[in-house]
Amino acid sequence: MKMIIQIFFIISLISTISFASVQDFCVADPKGPQSPSGYSCKNPDQVTENDFAFTGLGKAGNTSNIIKAAVTPAFAPAYAGINGLGVSLARLDLAGGGVIPLHTHPGASEVLVVIQGTICAGFISSANKVYLKTLNRGDSMVFPQGLLHFQLNSGKGPALAFVAFGSSSPGLQILPFALFANDLPSELVEATTFLSDAEVKKLKGVLGGTN
Amino acid sequence: MKMIIQIFFIISLISTISFASVQDFCVADPKGPQSPSGYSCKNPDQVTENDFAFTGLGKAGNTSNIIKAAVTPAFAPAYAGINGLGVSLARLDLAGGGVIPLHTHPGASEVLVVIQGTICAGFISSANKVYLKTLNRGDSMVFPQGLLHFQLNSGKGPALAFVAFGSSSPGLQILPFALFANDLPSELVEATTFLSDAEVKKLKGVLGGTN
Amino acid sequence: MKMIIQIFFIISLISTISFASVQDFCVADPKGPQSPSGYSCKNPDQVTENDFAFTGLGKAGNTSNIIKAAVTPAFAPAYAGINGLGVSLARLDLAGGGVIPLHTHPGASEVLVVIQGTICAGFISSANKVYLKTLNRGDSMVFPQGLLHFQLNSGKGPALAFVAFGSSSPGLQILPFALFANDLPSELVEATTFLSDAEVKKLKGVLGGTN
Amino acid sequence: MKMIIQIFFIISLISTISFASVQDFCVADPKGPQSPSGYSCKNPDQVTENDFAFTGLGKAGNTSNIIKAAVTPAFAPAYAGINGLGVSLARLDLAGGGVIPLHTHPGASEVLVVIQGTICAGFISSANKVYLKTLNRGDSMVFPQGLLHFQLNSGKGPALAFVAFGSSSPGLQILPFALFANDLPSELVEATTFLSDAEVKKLKGVLGGTN
Amino acid sequence: MKMIIQIFFIISLISTISFASVQDFCVADPKGPQSPSGYSCKNPDQVTENDFAFTGLGKAGNTSNIIKAAVTPAFAPAYAGINGLGVSLARLDLAGGGVIPLHTHPGASEVLVVIQGTICAGFISSANKVYLKTLNRGDSMVFPQGLLHFQLNSGKGPALAFVAFGSSSPGLQILPFALFANDLPSELVEATTFLSDAEVKKLKGVLGGTN
Amino acid sequence: MKMIIQIFFIISLISTISFASVQDFCVADPKGPQSPSGYSCKNPDQVTENDFAFTGLGKAGNTSNIIKAAVTPAFAPAYAGINGLGVSLARLDLAGGGVIPLHTHPGASEVLVVIQGTICAGFISSANKVYLKTLNRGDSMVFPQGLLHFQLNSGKGPALAFVAFGSSSPGLQILPFALFANDLPSELVEATTFLSDAEVKKLKGVLGGTN
Repeated sequence: MKMIIQIFFIISLISTISFASVQDFCVADPKGPQSPSGYSCKNPDQVTENDFAFTGLGKAGNTSNIIKAAVTPAFAPAYAGINGLGVSLARLDLAGGGVIPLHTHPGASEVLVVIQGTICAGFISSANKVYLKTLNRGDSMVFPQGLLHFQLNSGKGPALAFVAFGSSSPGLQILPFALFANDLPSELVEATTFLSDAEVKKLKGVLGGTN
Repeated sequence: MKMIIQIFFIISLISTISFASVQDFCVADPKGPQSPSGYSCKNPDQVTENDFAFTGLGKAGNTSNIIKAAVTPAFAPAYAGINGLGVSLARLDLAGGGVIPLHTHPGASEVLVVIQGTICAGFISSANKVYLKTLNRGDSMVFPQGLLHFQLNSGKGPALAFVAFGSSSPGLQILPFALFANDLPSELVEATTFLSDAEVKKLKGVLGGTN
Repeated sequence: MKMIIQIFFIISLISTISFASVQDFCVADPKGPQSPSGYSCKNPDQVTENDFAFTGLGKAGNTSNIIKAAVTPAFAPAYAGINGLGVSLARLDLAGGGVIPLHTHPGASEVLVVIQGTICAGFISSANKVYLKTLNRGDSMVFPQGLLHFQLNSGKGPALAFVAFGSSSPGLQILPFALFANDLPSELVEATTFLSDAEVKKLKGVLGGTN
Repeated sequence: MKMIIQIFFIISLISTISFASVQDFCVADPKGPQSPSGYSCKNPDQVTENDFAFTGLGKAGNTSNIIKAAVTPAFAPAYAGINGLGVSLARLDLAGGGVIPLHTHPGASEVLVVIQGTICAGFISSANKVYLKTLNRGDSMVFPQGLLHFQLNSGKGPALAFVAFGSSSPGLQILPFALFANDLPSELVEATTFLSDAEVKKLKGVLGGTN
Repeated sequence: MKMIIQIFFIISLISTISFASVQDFCVADPKGPQSPSGYSCKNPDQVTENDFAFTGLGKAGNTSNIIKAAVTPAFAPAYAGINGLGVSLARLDLAGGGVIPLHTHPGASEVLVVIQGTICAGFISSANKVYLKTLNRGDSMVFPQGLLHFQLNSGKGPALAFVAFGSSSPGLQILPFALFANDLPSELVEATTFLSDAEVKKLKGVLGGTN
Repeated sequence: MKMIIQIFFIISLISTISFASVQDFCVADPKGPQSPSGYSCKNPDQVTENDFAFTGLGKAGNTSNIIKAAVTPAFAPAYAGINGLGVSLARLDLAGGGVIPLHTHPGASEVLVVIQGTICAGFISSANKVYLKTLNRGDSMVFPQGLLHFQLNSGKGPALAFVAFGSSSPGLQILPFALFANDLPSELVEATTFLSDAEVKKLKGVLGGTN
């Protein structure tokens, strides 16, 4: 009897001192509108533990392509619970000779840790200075926000790394695709990069660009 | 006649130099979708002065519970106009012997000011150092974001304090409820806190936890 | 044949290493709900180059008004692509004798550059100190967030300036309109500004205020 | 013996899993350089519980002045521990007839709670709309960042309120002092506010302004 | 000859269009003052590629302790280049039966990826709801900022995971150490957690706490 | 006599209700340490109106170089008062045929307004889509943070534009200089861009790169 009363007190207590509208997280609802801060939030009552978990990183990406590499991102909305939390993750697979071409993340800095193999990584600062490291298993490197950087398998076997970003929406702009895999007119590519017409047209051919 | 023309000029002036889409505030519309930045905004035309006011803090919370204490929050959406403004408020009532158990606010730092009575308050840093103060009427203490802290009536009569947060959505995680008032299996509570099975089960009993 | 296969590889590569839900921008969809972070985002598939351009700044604002001045803002949602990007723009036209009255931008600092003419500009700090400059073509001045400032044509011909803000929603509160162009009761204006009843009523008459 | 070994293990454990450079807070060191993010941090080893407490709010401010009001701030560096934590506090005392003149906080929104008496408070939006409330004991009102607002004792006896800000450095610009208590030339005040020369000179006389 | 002139032009060009004071990064200078935004910046001329690399994550932490676990952080100032970049990393080693006790990171959300073994991980929301997952190699889980969470080796062999944070200074408060490994008086621990005196004193004994 | 007393009251009032440590701005002190939030602040007593003004934008930049273009930035510390205010400015001069090569600003979005001439501008999104506009006098375009973009004089005479950034430290990485004006080994440039060895070596020759 005493216990029942006590539990009643407790329950009324918890409701008394719980905050009416606490928002610990904002699990992405891909059907709602997006805002500059991210996806709309799923109704908290429908959120489950699976929203906070992501199973796509256990499997090597397909490296049967010309860069012999793959990037597997763990971002919203696929990773629904990460929406708005200011962090995200990706897996890098680099087969022998594989390379993640020069690229930037417009919205976040990146930190990498090598799980397997040897990776030559580097970034270029606004002052055009190059910071270059050879990284072995367990080594980490940080790439400041928005700067051009690359990762290249400089070892013998395959390489595997995980990278994390300080945003749940870091973005990814890969340089050769930005230059050669769209309809930006060749003459504009040439005028704004100093590359020759022949080189631009050759790479547009290779990467599927037009104009 | 001159006045009429002048007023006409003024009105056209104000419309000329007013900004088309000014957003001074975002009064919470609880029926719209939420985003990581907060509630959707009510149509500004329907916003009134009442959206910016909150009357719930004038009355003592109900302290007839085992902690002899009550927290009355002034948060969105009940306090609709505070949404997105980066600040919020709560009232603490502590009857004689009352205590706000160890808790954290995941999303904001807190500053407290004692209105009545004597409160013993403290927080514990990441370095496990304890910062402890006895606070009388008019005394203030600040609790850095996310750190465990508590408030306890160390005087004779009731105590009253107001606390403010640097977020309109600070969150509140109360330690004993987080540990003992849900279905986290006892063996996991024990393994992750070093508490004994008997202690965990006893407190689960008291606070309504299961498993 | 080899080329076809290569292009196939490239396309599968790009889809392999593109990020599923990249959000480089959030073009304003004025029909969706707003949040504290800005307008809802238009579907990226419907975004065009026109969303990132704004043509309203080429034309002088209408300065046939009592302040002989005009402000032409380039803000969302009219400038849809600027939503959420943390920057915005406005054009200032000051006819001879024109003035932008004392005003504040609650949400951003402002930087001004003079394109034509001579402008006397100034701001007042929280310490009530005045920072005053006469600016000629090509001169710039910065006005810290939220502080009262003004711009006045102190040359002979018309003056033109562009101003930029560190927010896509800086806000604009113009002091004489805030005081005299609404229904704030005269006695409250007087009590909170130290102005005389006669002065307040005269200016309410001029600027269309009531009460 | 076993206990000794265990404690040894624990201590080595804590040092193993403690983070090398945790920064829970940044207690203001007023002798170090300031940055846009606030004061330099005191050496954590020299931080005590007193850095997180402030005792200045227990005493009524001196209201023997023409506004019959006083603001007692609880800010860094006097309140050293609040530096960088994104929140701060102030006490408002309003004697009978007292008024906090129209003012803005350039750096934060404000939330007020009335402790004693009756306060008429209001703010003016960028759209020149007035939001006005009469607040009694326990009532709260929020004033969005950077907008002109005021508080006025509209009751019979003295009034007391506490206000909190969503920044440890909210700033305070009081309108009549900004206009009339410095050396901003009268002709500039007049041109940028539409006030008459007589009114400006009278108030400069009262408030100690020159020019 | 033509080439020489051209290079001269280029060099003057680069100096013409380079920005005078670009700040891509702020490598920690542990000898300078800290601010709320982090460590002081090392002179960019003295920054090398080694500042952006960290080699401490290649080696398993020492798990010969009562929790059979170790956390190896990659934070500033040891990882100097990560200062201010809004991201950081740590390595978790869990021997058989190992556990990272309940803990919070006051300053950032965390995302985890399992490299080896099986980990049972969970967090508790402000609403006291438990989100629990068993994670195998390649699985990821996200823990929202400031909420209590734990990781426990639920497999047979050792487990290894990497975790990333959306801040270069996330903090770490480990619950049993915060409660039992300092001088917070037992009566205060008991009053604020509902634990029994016997339990508190036993665990203070085990973890080295006093009072 | 009455006036003297009144002024005395006012002065004591202002000191009573002024905030002890208001920080409206943080004028750059280039001799102090930098932090992730910017330059150290100059002593406010030594700040003058000149700290908030910048006169370098009145003069055309020198376009006698291979790109026939010049960028004149208005950034801290040259523009000392802009430090920490979240906004900055630059002037673009494009002689006939001039071009600002493909570049990114890692730290801010950019908004441009054309003052004279005709500019073809464009940016490339993370999805490799091109957004291209021809801009005449008074036209504006916005370039989202961190994305590759360019400006090219597509008219007959010289062109002039001003650009603003939503940060006082936006950064500037110019693609051809990042690729070809440093010591990044040619084989790494080639592997990470798909450019041919001949092209890379030719452009390294032109732009002064080595290795």
